[in-house]
Amino acid sequence: MGSRRIVVIGGAAAGPKAAARARRLDEFAEVTIIQKEADLSMASCGYPYYVGGVFHDRNQLICSPTGVVRDSNFFKAAKNITALVSTEATAIDREKRQVHCVHLPTGETRTVNYDKLVIATGAQALIPPIAGTELKGVTTLHSLKDADYLRRIRDEGVVKEGVIVGGGLIGMEVCEALQQSGIHMTVVEMMPHTLTFLDWELASMLEKHVQSKAARVITHNGVAAFIGRDGELTAVRLQDGTELPCQLAIIAIGVKPNVTLARQAGLAIGERGGILVDEYMQTSDSNIYAAGDCVEVRNRITGQSVLAPLGDLANLQGRVAGQNVIEGNCARFPGTIQTGICKVFDYTAGATGLSEQAAHRLGYTDIITATTTTLDKPGFMGGKPIITKMVAHRDSRQILGVQCVGIGDVSRRIAAAALAVQGRFTVEDMINADLPYAPPFSQAIDSLITTAHVLENKLAGRMKGISVMDVKNKVDRGDDVFFLDVRGKDEFEVMRLGIGETLIPLGMLRQRLHELPADKDREIIVYCKISLRGYEAACILEANGWRNVNVMEGGVLAWPYAMEKSG
Amino acid sequence: MGSRRIVVIGGAAAGPKAAARARRLDEFAEVTIIQKEADLSMASCGYPYYVGGVFHDRNQLICSPTGVVRDSNFFKAAKNITALVSTEATAIDREKRQVHCVHLPTGETRTVNYDKLVIATGAQALIPPIAGTELKGVTTLHSLKDADYLRRIRDEGVVKEGVIVGGGLIGMEVCEALQQSGIHMTVVEMMPHTLTFLDWELASMLEKHVQSKAARVITHNGVAAFIGRDGELTAVRLQDGTELPCQLAIIAIGVKPNVTLARQAGLAIGERGGILVDEYMQTSDSNIYAAGDCVEVRNRITGQSVLAPLGDLANLQGRVAGQNVIEGNCARFPGTIQTGICKVFDYTAGATGLSEQAAHRLGYTDIITATTTTLDKPGFMGGKPIITKMVAHRDSRQILGVQCVGIGDVSRRIAAAALAVQGRFTVEDMINADLPYAPPFSQAIDSLITTAHVLENKLAGRMKGISVMDVKNKVDRGDDVFFLDVRGKDEFEVMRLGIGETLIPLGMLRQRLHELPADKDREIIVYCKISLRGYEAACILEANGWRNVNVMEGGVLAWPYAMEKSG
Repeated sequence: MGSRRIVVIGGAAAGPKAAARARRLDEFAEVTIIQKEADLSMASCGYPYYVGGVFHDRNQLICSPTGVVRDSNFFKAAKNITALVSTEATAIDREKRQVHCVHLPTGETRTVNYDKLVIATGAQALIPPIAGTELKGVTTLHSLKDADYLRRIRDEGVVKEGVIVGGGLIGMEVCEALQQSGIHMTVVEMMPHTLTFLDWELASMLEKHVQSKAARVITHNGVAAFIGRDGELTAVRLQDGTELPCQLAIIAIGVKPNVTLARQAGLAIGERGGILVDEYMQTSDSNIYAAGDCVEVRNRITGQSVLAPLGDLANLQGRVAGQNVIEGNCARFPGTIQTGICKVFDYTAGATGLSEQAAHRLGYTDIITATTTTLDKPGFMGGKPIITKMVAHRDSRQILGVQCVGIGDVSRRIAAAALAVQGRFTVEDMINADLPYAPPFSQAIDSLITTAHVLENKLAGRMKGISVMDVKNKVDRGDDVFFLDVRGKDEFEVMRLGIGETLIPLGMLRQRLHELPADKDREIIVYCKISLRGYEAACILEANGWRNVNVMEGGVLAWPYAMEKSG
Repeated sequence: MGSRRIVVIGGAAAGPKAAARARRLDEFAEVTIIQKEADLSMASCGYPYYVGGVFHDRNQLICSPTGVVRDSNFFKAAKNITALVSTEATAIDREKRQVHCVHLPTGETRTVNYDKLVIATGAQALIPPIAGTELKGVTTLHSLKDADYLRRIRDEGVVKEGVIVGGGLIGMEVCEALQQSGIHMTVVEMMPHTLTFLDWELASMLEKHVQSKAARVITHNGVAAFIGRDGELTAVRLQDGTELPCQLAIIAIGVKPNVTLARQAGLAIGERGGILVDEYMQTSDSNIYAAGDCVEVRNRITGQSVLAPLGDLANLQGRVAGQNVIEGNCARFPGTIQTGICKVFDYTAGATGLSEQAAHRLGYTDIITATTTTLDKPGFMGGKPIITKMVAHRDSRQILGVQCVGIGDVSRRIAAAALAVQGRFTVEDMINADLPYAPPFSQAIDSLITTAHVLENKLAGRMKGISVMDVKNKVDRGDDVFFLDVRGKDEFEVMRLGIGETLIPLGMLRQRLHELPADKDREIIVYCKISLRGYEAACILEANGWRNVNVMEGGVLAWPYAMEKSG
């Protein structure tokens, strides 16, 4: 038997990873990558930071950790992998186990034989079916060419106003990059809020922060058309008729898997539009595997098939596919819990598992949540606030998801939470977690544990919580609620909610109970800066006979309406 | 029935936490704290940072998050807790359920009745039984008074030389604090290396870093005596006879639980010298609970009873005790996995679970480890190196411990690893973990996952690794080994190990195999900067018939001997 022929279609993330893994497991296999673009192994998640000028050497996006550009020569010399770049795979002949391809610059065609094939064709940016997308100034940030274009715009400094269509992860990252570069940016999102991997109240905190940086966020409003003159973009028209003058528009409404090749070859495609694979990353043809943004994977919590086009997962999947093409199906990719994180100006927003919103959408009926505001480390170490929301299943007490937003260290909390969700931790498992504590890194009780404590108190019926959003709704409806702020007088002077609240500092509450509603069934909503004192106040009130006391979770610091009021 | 009487002895961390939790669960209980010192709720883990001038307002060590000093008035007003400060509990009468105590400033005695008692008497600094400990200039950093003393020394700027006795967590933190304040510090450690929660090679990296900051680390050498003149410290004499001139010596060799009161009351004391409690934090007397540094707790991995005097655990235990004195035994403290972290100059060192050393000491015979050097985030985002070591059980593949050291973000990795160890993750569970990825926070494949990948490769026999320590031993013994560096020529020019190695860049290895030993059984040790290319080289060599190829784990960046060589 001659050496095995491993062919990989796609040279961005999953493809090179699969090829390299295959090579390491079989020094004598023939490994070939067919890559449509000119570049290989592009760090596409780094594009917003290149565009924004965090670094200036474009080669850093396509080089190895030691600074060698990962071109065909690199792949040949270091890995003995043949990388055919600027080469498009046009058809897969499964019968003959051949890939037909064409070298794009010359039009030359060729056929590559395989024993095992890995499809890693990635995804493409979604483009809305509206007028004007062809105008100069309308772009995406999907390819390295896009990044080059936007970087040039940044460096030229001519464009004054830009619009981001879509307030997802990439949209927000690009908003930061260009706003920091001196272009006045507006993010337009069709949904009620941006960053839909977060629940509304956390996304709102982030939107407020973006607006504090003089960028604009418009929600509940889609883009109706791109308007131009002489082929150049001049404005974006929104669905409500508003026109936003701009010279640049970046479409960032998501991606869809590139499955044309797979579909034409007769491979099974899933309901979400991605190539169907099993946990071995094997397609419906046992000689063909697929990995990366072109596949559907299993959500480990819900068991459902999902699209999860993320660079880290692409790498993990590529590694599994690369192993299985050599060793047979021994490596598994168990799926995703849809962990995500992004930096937006001084804020970080992260989430893992299910949001409350997602849980409701999926039909979970028995959900309980807790939201806390904490410092990421002690005040004397310059601790910065983060808001953490934990979603659990009431019956099983399993933690289904955690979100975290703030200027403090969100990354650590979401990394730890991701393993808790993956490990199917219950609230009890988190309550006494032994996390690394020292003042430069956390408070004695980490925010994850604090949030689990609140969740446990709610589960035990010791605390009744109410979200800031529900409080706001009550205020707007004019509900008959007694709002009680138990902070200090000085704190109240600096900042207050202005919702008709009564101030009784916690330290005086026991002496001033007579100032509270005589009707012990009247709803009382109590809070403080972060609602720890709020919780203590609720304990006092309940012990004294008030039967309808709710703590506003996260406290004043979680209240995202200040901006609206001042605006 | 009258209101319940809850008495807590100890007002530092576990005590106030227990008292506050009890109050929240029963508004009408009588809750009393008996505190020997004048202060309450001291953030003692913050002392090194106050001493070092990270912040200047001493009140920050004893105030609530909103800046109110937590004195007796605060406890009374905010929590309706009576805090008897400067009051020492002298005896517990279990029969009558009374605590006898004395107000230290006045000598006045009193008796406090309890229904349930919580002992949170903490620990005291160990003092070695050697001459001179009474000299002026010899201190510990255990109490707020100690912190005040050291802060004064820092501010006065008179002391030029200081010695830390004991290279543990606190010793290293204080070393940083005072060295940064302009005092030339020397850390003296009796064991072969400092920070014994780390394995040797990781601790060595840290020692090297400390020395690069002009502080000194002396290991394998204890302190024999403190030497003075006119009652003032002038030098420290080491066991090997060396004398280190100094005006300040800080003893930081650990703590022992304060159990006199408990022992005299006839409560069971454990083998490690701490008060014995069950998972409810209940002592051998069902009316008495204990929490914090004075108790022994269960190590969740080994099942053994251990001392784990850490502020975060004290808080968690206090919460459990405070709940159980009110609600009966419903809350549990499951134990510790002995997670720890500390900042030492620009480095962070963290560990969770068992080190290799600890596993061997405990008799685990079937241990496998992997060590990697990675960047915490991509190079283009300014990623900084961290060295990660994972310890697993070979048979069950369970991850028993993770250590991490470096200037990058160690905190996130240890927080996540702690939950993996707690959750009894196997190596496979970590391999495809869905951690939060974005360039500002991590590489596409997080260092924890990279390390699990290496561990899996080793478990599967795909890679044979050797630690830098074992390589160094071979070099020192003059073993007949062929050392192969597969980095680029330019990298080699900048920094090389100088152990008789041969340089063949990976990209040329396949063409230059004839330069390798003709004897295919000769041991070859191969490495690169981080040993990823080293692993690829090993794959090539093995495929070409060499049978004894080992990869030096962590690569050149994990090699801690450069300092020794240049020194």
